[in-house]
Amino acid sequence: MNRQAIYHIPKSNYAFAAAPNDFRIRLRVGKDDLDSVKLVIGNKYQWKDREEMPMTKIGSDSLFDYYGCRYAYLDPRLGYYFVLTKGEEELIYAENGFLNPDEVDIDGDRIGFVHFQFPYVNEEDIHRYPDWVHQAVFYQIFPERFCNGDPSLSPENVEEWGGKPERFNYFGGDLPGIIQKLDYLAELGINAIYLTPIFEATSNHKYDTVDYTRIDPHFGDESTLIELVQQAHQRGIRIVLDGVFNHSGFQFHQFQDVLAHGENSPYKDWFHILNFPVTLDPPNFFGFSSGPYMKLPEGLPPGAKRFMMPKLRTSNPELRKYLLSAVEKWTRTGIDGWRLDVGDEVESGFWREFRKTVHSVNPDALIIGEDWWNAEPWVRGDQFDGVMNYAFQRASVLYFGRGSVTAEEFSQLLTENMMRYTSQANHSMLNILDSHDTARFINECGGDVRKLKNAAVFQYTYVGMPCTYYGTEIGLTGDNDPDCRKTFDWDESHWNQELRAHYQKLMKLRKETPALQRGDIRFIGNTDVFAMERSLEGERIVTLINQTEQEQAFELEGSTGELLLAEKKLSGEAGRLMVKLAPCSSEIVRVL
Amino acid sequence: MNRQAIYHIPKSNYAFAAAPNDFRIRLRVGKDDLDSVKLVIGNKYQWKDREEMPMTKIGSDSLFDYYGCRYAYLDPRLGYYFVLTKGEEELIYAENGFLNPDEVDIDGDRIGFVHFQFPYVNEEDIHRYPDWVHQAVFYQIFPERFCNGDPSLSPENVEEWGGKPERFNYFGGDLPGIIQKLDYLAELGINAIYLTPIFEATSNHKYDTVDYTRIDPHFGDESTLIELVQQAHQRGIRIVLDGVFNHSGFQFHQFQDVLAHGENSPYKDWFHILNFPVTLDPPNFFGFSSGPYMKLPEGLPPGAKRFMMPKLRTSNPELRKYLLSAVEKWTRTGIDGWRLDVGDEVESGFWREFRKTVHSVNPDALIIGEDWWNAEPWVRGDQFDGVMNYAFQRASVLYFGRGSVTAEEFSQLLTENMMRYTSQANHSMLNILDSHDTARFINECGGDVRKLKNAAVFQYTYVGMPCTYYGTEIGLTGDNDPDCRKTFDWDESHWNQELRAHYQKLMKLRKETPALQRGDIRFIGNTDVFAMERSLEGERIVTLINQTEQEQAFELEGSTGELLLAEKKLSGEAGRLMVKLAPCSSEIVRVL
Repeated sequence: MNRQAIYHIPKSNYAFAAAPNDFRIRLRVGKDDLDSVKLVIGNKYQWKDREEMPMTKIGSDSLFDYYGCRYAYLDPRLGYYFVLTKGEEELIYAENGFLNPDEVDIDGDRIGFVHFQFPYVNEEDIHRYPDWVHQAVFYQIFPERFCNGDPSLSPENVEEWGGKPERFNYFGGDLPGIIQKLDYLAELGINAIYLTPIFEATSNHKYDTVDYTRIDPHFGDESTLIELVQQAHQRGIRIVLDGVFNHSGFQFHQFQDVLAHGENSPYKDWFHILNFPVTLDPPNFFGFSSGPYMKLPEGLPPGAKRFMMPKLRTSNPELRKYLLSAVEKWTRTGIDGWRLDVGDEVESGFWREFRKTVHSVNPDALIIGEDWWNAEPWVRGDQFDGVMNYAFQRASVLYFGRGSVTAEEFSQLLTENMMRYTSQANHSMLNILDSHDTARFINECGGDVRKLKNAAVFQYTYVGMPCTYYGTEIGLTGDNDPDCRKTFDWDESHWNQELRAHYQKLMKLRKETPALQRGDIRFIGNTDVFAMERSLEGERIVTLINQTEQEQAFELEGSTGELLLAEKKLSGEAGRLMVKLAPCSSEIVRVL
Repeated sequence: MNRQAIYHIPKSNYAFAAAPNDFRIRLRVGKDDLDSVKLVIGNKYQWKDREEMPMTKIGSDSLFDYYGCRYAYLDPRLGYYFVLTKGEEELIYAENGFLNPDEVDIDGDRIGFVHFQFPYVNEEDIHRYPDWVHQAVFYQIFPERFCNGDPSLSPENVEEWGGKPERFNYFGGDLPGIIQKLDYLAELGINAIYLTPIFEATSNHKYDTVDYTRIDPHFGDESTLIELVQQAHQRGIRIVLDGVFNHSGFQFHQFQDVLAHGENSPYKDWFHILNFPVTLDPPNFFGFSSGPYMKLPEGLPPGAKRFMMPKLRTSNPELRKYLLSAVEKWTRTGIDGWRLDVGDEVESGFWREFRKTVHSVNPDALIIGEDWWNAEPWVRGDQFDGVMNYAFQRASVLYFGRGSVTAEEFSQLLTENMMRYTSQANHSMLNILDSHDTARFINECGGDVRKLKNAAVFQYTYVGMPCTYYGTEIGLTGDNDPDCRKTFDWDESHWNQELRAHYQKLMKLRKETPALQRGDIRFIGNTDVFAMERSLEGERIVTLINQTEQEQAFELEGSTGELLLAEKKLSGEAGRLMVKLAPCSSEIVRVL
């Protein structure tokens, strides 16, 4: 037994309550190392009443197997340990390491000093997330480029719709444009929109807020937002806004006040100021990297460029009050959640209060952070529900786009990522193939629409909320920023109608299929065929993807089935269903 | 390379800031597996300016080696990865696992998707703890048994001082008694007292609070506490109180109100009530196990016994306000901190507010939780500073008391425990050999005072706050509760004066020796001799312990030295110092 591979820690992604009375336990062990794992669990104060239950292998990555099980406790004061078996070898694994079963007096008084503890499952500590995430079908809109619904709002220097996106040009997209296209979106099949920022800012992307209390005048005003929310809700579409609280824009009024008045400014403690007076040469305030993405004042010294978005000191009580009252105000418009820019660089105390503020207005609001790396510390239930799932995105680029990993390796990447998080966080992930911060996925696929379609099949059947970047469904292309921010092409004759129909089918399927919304997940494929089963209360849905240029066949257990994409019945022989997959194609099978 | 043994995760005990600009990184690898480990670290947005630094092996347990290093960042936005070497093999270990160095374009744009991230070291997220913990020498008092300073306060049925402690008897110890003995304690050398609960309750231990706003009348009143705090402070002694917020006593007025009025009680939501009306047959409120420790009303059904201390629903706003205003009131008396009973069973939201409340009155207050198991989730800086270190206590019982582990195994247990926590938490641990909840350590040693003395030498030179249970210094004995709660014997002729002198020497040494307070720690012993070096800015203090019944010799690097217990000079030969240790004895060496 490779003892060094074995890992478990209570009160973590390895042991958590998914809901009251629904305790989940995971154990990591060396790949293909063990024969079986058993959990011994009970009330730590009534240890004699403990139960034993087998654990199931719930997934594998390149190095490890993961075992899991659920325990419907009656008493929330839990003690537990694992019994590991490999051939003749049997070991107990507990808080202080490994024990031989015969060395331990399992019924003895001192067992309390041996087992793992989850001292008390307090309901208040359980990560609660909106139930609607399970049905959510998200669509990300970059408002400046989606639809120009009211040309009177457009900036003076607006360019012709369909022109080449540059870092600093404008096309006039706005909130009225989104309102006008809600019917289009409803017909497509989405039921939630994530809007990149809409508050007053100087750029086309609006990540450089000038006024947190005001809608950008080129996008509309407060009443336009309220109308958008109402019109969207009438169509069953939720609205999630983008909050930028890590940094403000350079032109943020309060920062300009500090530039003007230095230490005499009432806002001097709202920022990470390094020196007074604040000048730009060299920059002596601490900021978020604006990189090449911000239009800077003329004549800056070269070193200044990286610091043009001042980092907010969110622990300052006045600033916190200002920001959270803006959050409260916008949440009161009826929106359904927030996506939080650079979520991982903001102090956690702010996020905890942010969460309370949002939930005090709308307990059903979703909170999604931006974090491109391991986000576990933020999705424990006290800060975000989930994050923009860039780990999902990167793995998808490798498998579907570049073909640099096999189907099996792809499953392993997904497993490793899923095991980082609780079940609640996994269901709350915003699963993206691309975004305003990446090249479009079709470009990562070298323009091969088959690969994009395969990726979408995966995305809409995986755990977490599928989110489609605007225009993907009609075949919009684009390289990295700024090219990925092209205007939506509303000329239907340019649309890839087949691709759009594919997305419509997937969105409908996702919304109608409980197993895709809440089902357990299991990877059952091989090197050539990616196969993933979602199952819930007898419903079994299997996703099959063939990224190879050869036809593949895949055999499933089952007597009959239904090909949900091809819309054909499937009948098996001797309890086996054979599914044929054309080169670079995919299928979703309902197994009966 | 045993890849499955290798572990690191950012924002955890493996990567944290100990203070602004003092970032600590640890890596766990298989025991004796690697030749060297290097850290590559820098600003994630300016990756080209990264630095490389060697990592040092900072400890080992039975399965793993731990490497560590410190990084004094200038920019708090950190990216990093590890370079692992074993013979000819070199591997990069980063967020997504292992990479061959030649496969990675380390300077490429995409490195941001390879390295680990600590996205931003926000000062607000750094665990701040009172600086005084480094000098703290704690003494735990069980007030009912320490000194009866005012017989007029004693309960009616008080028994004669020195009698046999039973679960439910009284001897009359009180706060005036502690005040009278402050000179004794100052002479002993302690500078902090942890008092078990002093608020109104029905038991002798007072863990069953009846009124959180009132000092137990058998102990004194508010003015007595204030006098105690003032008198203690005059002698440089800090006072830490015990807070019992997991559960109340059965006689807690508000719970009695619920028993009387059921759902009509304004306090009905203050508890985990299972059914109304609340009766005792069977118990239909959820409580903390009172076990055999509580005197119960007559005629209870057997099942009721376990639930006689109702669990408080600390998320209830009214209850929270009641408790936190009591906390604020008592903190305002000038006390220096809180120890929190059953800290691990209370919801985290309460502890976060508790911490803010306490620090708003006294930013320098210490917060210690009771948690007998892995307490890492509670000591990240938002809840407790440290916990009562029962892992330290158990390891000490095994090595010093029972002799069931070797010196080397003892070092491994300590290392494993220390690696669970950040540096701040380790310094804030209350390191105990025993408490009111265990047998006295001298009993665990079968009465062998030599072993207790050895354990004390270890305790006073280890990382964390040594805490001596009242009476240990004079040789007080006692088996498990209630026997470990004997009255202090104030007849000096009964004292073990040599033991007391030993404690005085250790306390003095601890308070005067910076390396013992803040020094790095390294275990350098072998199977027979426990050897631990603490070092700080050139000061080197080595603890040597021989638990065997043979004389042992131990060689140290150094040219001269001082035996701090024997108070003798030591001179070496050829840069080596030889220390002889008599059977079952110990020494503390200052190496020069």
